[in-house]
Amino acid sequence: MRTTVGWQAEGVTTLRRATIPRRGLRPDDLAVRVDYCGVCHSDLHAVRSHRDATAPMLVPGHEFSGVVTEVGSEVDGFAVGDPVAVGNIVDSCGVCAMCLAGQENFCREFPTLTYGGTDRRDGSTTLGAYAREYLVRDRFAFHLPGGLDPAGGAPLLCAGITVWEPLRALGVGPGTRVAVVGLGGLGHLAVKLSVALGAETAVVSRSRDKAADAHRLGAHEFLVSADEAEMDAARDRFDVVIDTISAPHDLEPYLRLVALDGTLSQVGYLGPVTVQTTDLLIGRKKLGSAGSGGRAGTATLLDFCARHHITADIEILPSARVNEALDRLERNDVRYRFVLDLSDLD
Amino acid sequence: MRTTVGWQAEGVTTLRRATIPRRGLRPDDLAVRVDYCGVCHSDLHAVRSHRDATAPMLVPGHEFSGVVTEVGSEVDGFAVGDPVAVGNIVDSCGVCAMCLAGQENFCREFPTLTYGGTDRRDGSTTLGAYAREYLVRDRFAFHLPGGLDPAGGAPLLCAGITVWEPLRALGVGPGTRVAVVGLGGLGHLAVKLSVALGAETAVVSRSRDKAADAHRLGAHEFLVSADEAEMDAARDRFDVVIDTISAPHDLEPYLRLVALDGTLSQVGYLGPVTVQTTDLLIGRKKLGSAGSGGRAGTATLLDFCARHHITADIEILPSARVNEALDRLERNDVRYRFVLDLSDLD
Repeated sequence: MRTTVGWQAEGVTTLRRATIPRRGLRPDDLAVRVDYCGVCHSDLHAVRSHRDATAPMLVPGHEFSGVVTEVGSEVDGFAVGDPVAVGNIVDSCGVCAMCLAGQENFCREFPTLTYGGTDRRDGSTTLGAYAREYLVRDRFAFHLPGGLDPAGGAPLLCAGITVWEPLRALGVGPGTRVAVVGLGGLGHLAVKLSVALGAETAVVSRSRDKAADAHRLGAHEFLVSADEAEMDAARDRFDVVIDTISAPHDLEPYLRLVALDGTLSQVGYLGPVTVQTTDLLIGRKKLGSAGSGGRAGTATLLDFCARHHITADIEILPSARVNEALDRLERNDVRYRFVLDLSDLD
Repeated sequence: MRTTVGWQAEGVTTLRRATIPRRGLRPDDLAVRVDYCGVCHSDLHAVRSHRDATAPMLVPGHEFSGVVTEVGSEVDGFAVGDPVAVGNIVDSCGVCAMCLAGQENFCREFPTLTYGGTDRRDGSTTLGAYAREYLVRDRFAFHLPGGLDPAGGAPLLCAGITVWEPLRALGVGPGTRVAVVGLGGLGHLAVKLSVALGAETAVVSRSRDKAADAHRLGAHEFLVSADEAEMDAARDRFDVVIDTISAPHDLEPYLRLVALDGTLSQVGYLGPVTVQTTDLLIGRKKLGSAGSGGRAGTATLLDFCARHHITADIEILPSARVNEALDRLERNDVRYRFVLDLSDLD
């Protein structure tokens, strides 16, 4: 068994530096030197839920970039030295209808998550990329296009693809009106991507604090959700509403923004939601959800971002400051994504 | 004030024959001799909710056909003797975004319902078409195409348009896979319309009782919702699921049928619904709802039905047997729509 160095959860509040086991290189594996790893809300949730030492070992991190350091004997699409990126899925059954449709994220057998998942071959619990090295099946690594900054590019692999797939599936482009609810890690990328796709794009936020930022990101309009008159004037106006709020919340005010035959897509919250059927019926509106993405979509996103010079707005911290990053993320004190620089682990 | 004869709710269980007030003919009004009126679930609900004599007068009936007997001075699209049909909306503001989009059923000021609504000009409560005459603004009457049976055609105006609009809005046609949940008044028309639109169409029902009927209606497949293996095999298979169940129910088994990027549209139930976000997320599925229709869609539907020889499967009863019809509808004892023949009121 090979090992690397990384950050392991200890109790609910801290990560500590530890030696992390890694599997031996398989014939279809890449060994990747992890250079940058984004700090996702899921990481925070996983750490805060990791109650005690009896839980399986937890190493977060599922949106990262780095360089290939070794390739297995059957790998032919990657070579040592290639810049690559990996997201929150590292394997899937490969044969179900969803996998065959290029949506490995919806694999019927459930995809193998980058951390906290169960390896399909040896049954071990996967350990994430808050670590200097990651071993990944070649199918789930992506070439990082030239010109795409590896630090700002890392969050594209989870935050980015999570908003990209619903934007694309809902046909966002020139002539589409899009509202992005919540300007955080997911929201700011949704704005950049929606604008680059050619859509009229609005941001809906709790206060006016982020108005200047929203416009700098390219948004054409800024709505304050607490301003009833403003929200009322925007009723039935948006073909697509991307709701990035990560806590339980009433959907009614945001469904009101949806235009005839339009869709509100939740990407930030995973629990149960209750809606009044009439809030959908009047205007024939739809409620959807999306999360993560497939291999095909991820490759398309990276190419699109390289062509449009889109990366996340990030704050880079040395990985030794990971606990500070989690604490500040918990307070929403980041514009808009923390990225850990793992080089301090050498 | 003119009057007619009709059926008025008295308490929660019965309708009794009564003299019904009608407004005087307005310049843009048609007077219609009501020949046939369908018995909708909404009628049953309205009667059963009409607790006592202190409630406003209730005359149900909002999907009917008949013949124009008089036209107002400003009417130019209709003449005395024209066969016409009217649905569950008889007025709207005409100037909001929804009205301008041809979706008067979603009028921002709320459309005027055919019964139990508030007349926009005199403030009176509208009284429905379980009566021999109805006065209707010309914009909300539709020419009944030649060849369309006026009795079987009446239910198209509510049951028909309610399923037609989501089928159309969701792009149903050749190559689409549609599942209709529940084979009743709405469901059997959804099947006929979906098949005529060229879609592969399945029926999902609680038991096998209606399998032969489903195939006679044109369905290509029949699924029993209680059969777990059958439902599991149909997972992720339908682009559009039209859910016509009129009582609160768990949506999860029907969301499982929805294909990648597909939609479940509720048309039978109007209350609150709770869904797990993950049941939408996995497969990027959508939950929608629809009900009633706009003027443009209704005219298109009637034309489509005339060309495809589609009417409702009905059981005609003389209007004096209206209470029997409601009782049997309450027990789902009808295949598939009662239509009252109002000629017995002469």
